[in-house]
Amino acid sequence: MKLEEDINAAPEGALRPRIDDAPPPHARKVYVEGSRPDIQVPMREIHLSPTPSEYGAEDNPPLRLYDTGGPYTDWEAAKPDVRLGLPPLRRPWVTERGDVEEYEGAPIPVAGFAGTRPRPLRAQAGRCVTQLHYARRGEVTPEMQFVAIREGLDPEVIRTEVALGRAIIPSNVNHPESEPMAIGRNLLVKINANIGNSAVGSSIEEEVDKLAWSVRWGADTVMDLSTGADIHATREWIVRNSPVPIGTVPIYQALENVGGVAEDLTWEVYRDTILEQAEQGVDYFTVHAGVLLRYVPLTARRVTGIVSRGGSILAAWCLAHHKENFLYTHFEELCEIFAAYDVAFSLGDGLRPGSIADANDEAQFGELRTLGELTQVAWRHDVQVMIEGPGHVPMNKIKENVDLEREVCHDAPFYTLGPLTVDIAPGYDHITSAIGAAMIGWYGASMLCYVTPKEHLGLPNRKDVKDGVIAYKIAAHAADLAKGHPGAQQWDDALSKARFEFRWEDQFNLSLDPECARGFHDETLPATPAKKAHFCSMCGPKFCSMRISQDVREYAAAHGLNEDEALAAGLADKAEEFHRRGSSLYVSPD
Amino acid sequence: MKLEEDINAAPEGALRPRIDDAPPPHARKVYVEGSRPDIQVPMREIHLSPTPSEYGAEDNPPLRLYDTGGPYTDWEAAKPDVRLGLPPLRRPWVTERGDVEEYEGAPIPVAGFAGTRPRPLRAQAGRCVTQLHYARRGEVTPEMQFVAIREGLDPEVIRTEVALGRAIIPSNVNHPESEPMAIGRNLLVKINANIGNSAVGSSIEEEVDKLAWSVRWGADTVMDLSTGADIHATREWIVRNSPVPIGTVPIYQALENVGGVAEDLTWEVYRDTILEQAEQGVDYFTVHAGVLLRYVPLTARRVTGIVSRGGSILAAWCLAHHKENFLYTHFEELCEIFAAYDVAFSLGDGLRPGSIADANDEAQFGELRTLGELTQVAWRHDVQVMIEGPGHVPMNKIKENVDLEREVCHDAPFYTLGPLTVDIAPGYDHITSAIGAAMIGWYGASMLCYVTPKEHLGLPNRKDVKDGVIAYKIAAHAADLAKGHPGAQQWDDALSKARFEFRWEDQFNLSLDPECARGFHDETLPATPAKKAHFCSMCGPKFCSMRISQDVREYAAAHGLNEDEALAAGLADKAEEFHRRGSSLYVSPD
Repeated sequence: MKLEEDINAAPEGALRPRIDDAPPPHARKVYVEGSRPDIQVPMREIHLSPTPSEYGAEDNPPLRLYDTGGPYTDWEAAKPDVRLGLPPLRRPWVTERGDVEEYEGAPIPVAGFAGTRPRPLRAQAGRCVTQLHYARRGEVTPEMQFVAIREGLDPEVIRTEVALGRAIIPSNVNHPESEPMAIGRNLLVKINANIGNSAVGSSIEEEVDKLAWSVRWGADTVMDLSTGADIHATREWIVRNSPVPIGTVPIYQALENVGGVAEDLTWEVYRDTILEQAEQGVDYFTVHAGVLLRYVPLTARRVTGIVSRGGSILAAWCLAHHKENFLYTHFEELCEIFAAYDVAFSLGDGLRPGSIADANDEAQFGELRTLGELTQVAWRHDVQVMIEGPGHVPMNKIKENVDLEREVCHDAPFYTLGPLTVDIAPGYDHITSAIGAAMIGWYGASMLCYVTPKEHLGLPNRKDVKDGVIAYKIAAHAADLAKGHPGAQQWDDALSKARFEFRWEDQFNLSLDPECARGFHDETLPATPAKKAHFCSMCGPKFCSMRISQDVREYAAAHGLNEDEALAAGLADKAEEFHRRGSSLYVSPD
Repeated sequence: MKLEEDINAAPEGALRPRIDDAPPPHARKVYVEGSRPDIQVPMREIHLSPTPSEYGAEDNPPLRLYDTGGPYTDWEAAKPDVRLGLPPLRRPWVTERGDVEEYEGAPIPVAGFAGTRPRPLRAQAGRCVTQLHYARRGEVTPEMQFVAIREGLDPEVIRTEVALGRAIIPSNVNHPESEPMAIGRNLLVKINANIGNSAVGSSIEEEVDKLAWSVRWGADTVMDLSTGADIHATREWIVRNSPVPIGTVPIYQALENVGGVAEDLTWEVYRDTILEQAEQGVDYFTVHAGVLLRYVPLTARRVTGIVSRGGSILAAWCLAHHKENFLYTHFEELCEIFAAYDVAFSLGDGLRPGSIADANDEAQFGELRTLGELTQVAWRHDVQVMIEGPGHVPMNKIKENVDLEREVCHDAPFYTLGPLTVDIAPGYDHITSAIGAAMIGWYGASMLCYVTPKEHLGLPNRKDVKDGVIAYKIAAHAADLAKGHPGAQQWDDALSKARFEFRWEDQFNLSLDPECARGFHDETLPATPAKKAHFCSMCGPKFCSMRISQDVREYAAAHGLNEDEALAAGLADKAEEFHRRGSSLYVSPD
């Protein structure tokens, strides 16, 4: 294992992820205190320069942005040592409720991990420890308060959304390192980044690095999709170092445990796997309980059959045994386990379409209806649920997915992969899918699972992870704007105002990717003075529309004109004065 | 001028653009003959390998794709020498109609250009030479036939669309090098690439190279937005070497001609500029005739004022003179000139929103209504028209733009810039705008003007041009699929079938960017045998959902099952056999 070697070789005794060390300029991490001192909600604050005198000389207040980076984006604090894991900030909130117990978990050693691993927690006999349970009994937990501050909403709104099943707060009692966040259609749209190695490549160290890198750019949750030999250790490193909820697909490990032969899978093997992962602190599990035996033949005539790994494993199992999917037949037992740790269901769409041709077919929608039934079963156990969605879907068929999901799954949050809106652009599927993701987010999906440029082709590297996260931050923000989420447009307005006022540095610093924006500007106009230029390289000084536009604005303001007055009075008498001032229009200010 | 130096230095005496020399594997250019031998419609044909026996052993017919690359993508033919220009394929069609005359044009020398430049053509006195004119009198021109074959539609359909003003075929009689194409809501969605230098950077050679590069990746038209000193020569090189229609914004050159002082612009200067460019062969002009004096004050309170260069120049002129926009007051004279060359109007949206905050405001929609009035004026002169659209628009406000444009502009084709759906991602605006472009294309826009990653930051280089074109090919194709354009989905189906059958090379070759797809695959699984592997690096052999899915399909087929039978009969008796075959499920075939 590469990580172990690195640890032994590390001179300082500390191992830190390779996220960029220099903070973004003019950005800092701030914490907003909630109703008690241990509720410290992180935000990224961008400091802005004042508006120059020619544009009206005013101060521009700093902008606070939702920040998912945990300690990795607190550039003023020490970087976390991944061998020790992050501080367990939620542990007191969990234990003080008095409904959990410590117990002896499965003692699986994790090479190289030096942090103290406390004994795992689970619900005391007869208790339920889910946020849904608390919300239904009217309790606003510290987790809900934390979420409310992040979202800029009233805590009671969060409690209601959770109580109704319209939002979930993935928060396994054994993952106290994660900062509470919520997924729901009336909240900011969230994004998930997938990481994980496969039998073919990638080391644990790379995966922990991708975790830190993902949240540094804005991933709200991370799924560890590892399938290799070190699956348990990889997950332990990831969970202990993650400030965001972690999801997994336990069937992958279960299959490893039976030597990779799908037909040898059993409920008992699966159950033991989820217990192991629940003890580690995984916050949500993808469970393909809707892949029913009767749906499998419906995929035979598809262009691309079954494209979900989990879905195909369970389809193979169902066919081999000619039995109903054991995840379906044991669903109530699953709920009991999930309720004891507050693991959330992410009900998997094992029959999602893998091509435009297969979108919205009978197999897909049959499974979706089954997921709706299972949602109600889970809710009876006070277990939190979200529903996974497609896949490959042309634009004209996207809305039907959301509408049907809302109807048959009773408004449980919809968590979709893209969807990809064309099949023809491997290498660019972060774009083909950002189109679908933005639209489905607007229509009501609550979380968007990213797709990287490597989709269909290979495992994402560091660059692909960043490209995927940024494409999905764009999609999610576009959805927030279109939904009219309160406050979402402040960010755009602040950046556009900076752009209009030629506050280049502010424009860069407000960007999703400041380094990229600055670098692109430097390619054409590299000199520092150009950062204060009142024009840009696209038009040059003579053609600067922003500059001319400001002259128009000044002219109107100087004469106290509003639109109606300008229309009524005409501008004839003022034309001459503007004419005299005209020669200043094209002077480059620097 | 760098090009001239290069020409003098060129040892072979030929200068060819730097587009990649190696053709995409298994791709070749084919020509479909129309009703006469000189109608040769180019297509890119992708040869596919047969389906392997385990997937059913069938031949896969070659796929023909729309190809905009002209001689640049005819890899078997000699590369064009940019000093000579492309062959004037449309010249006979123009002259044989007997309605044009040669005349002495303005003799502006173009350094380094060695091709014979015939005397310019224009309509004989009292004649109209526009495709709209021919269409209205019931004539199916060779241009319309060419378009019909490209679009896979009946020539009469094309004629009708043009006659109704719902489609245009930009085809200046002085640009016989261009291959006819049409822009209209009932046709394939088109994309435009902007190139052009500014006072700040870029040489003529780079611009000609960007032209060839744009059409090689699929740009349907190209706009030359140059604003520098060599504006005339740059344009001449571009038009003579362009297999696609060329658009310009003549106000840029007019402003150069008056020393860069907007208030010194006059109708006469502008008229002379468009005559010069019409003689050169520009196919459509952006004309900001809708920027009326009374709309200018409406922009004063915007977050980003006026962001169109042309719009701001005309707004400054209107204010300085307190007169109505001379493009509006001289619009009939413009129409007469356009009719004599078959230049199409691209009625510019000088007041388009430059930020989310300014979308769909009174200034923007007021101008759009004026463009609708002007459309009817142009149509009275049999001049072809399209309407430019925004800009920055959140997703929930996009459809309103299309609906209003259709209503007030009487279904004239809508040609939109993006729209960008968020303001916060400079450096990634090809993505922020591909989202809006795909949607507006679905809603009914006919051509999408690309946005590159450099938007707002700098001039696009070669990589940016490619990234922009590919993002927009994705958006346009997503729109074609959503609109259900006949034949659009064949491409996706062919690629997805190749993917399912693990025909990796076919999957790469069918991609928008084969080199990129192949390169990404190589990063994780570089060996040649991996190109035949029946799994990929994402899941590895054990988890291959495609493989399992194929087993399911084979199982169903082997037993002659259709879905209903499978449901009715149950699969019990077949389970054992599947079980026996099960061990083959996970064997890596190579």
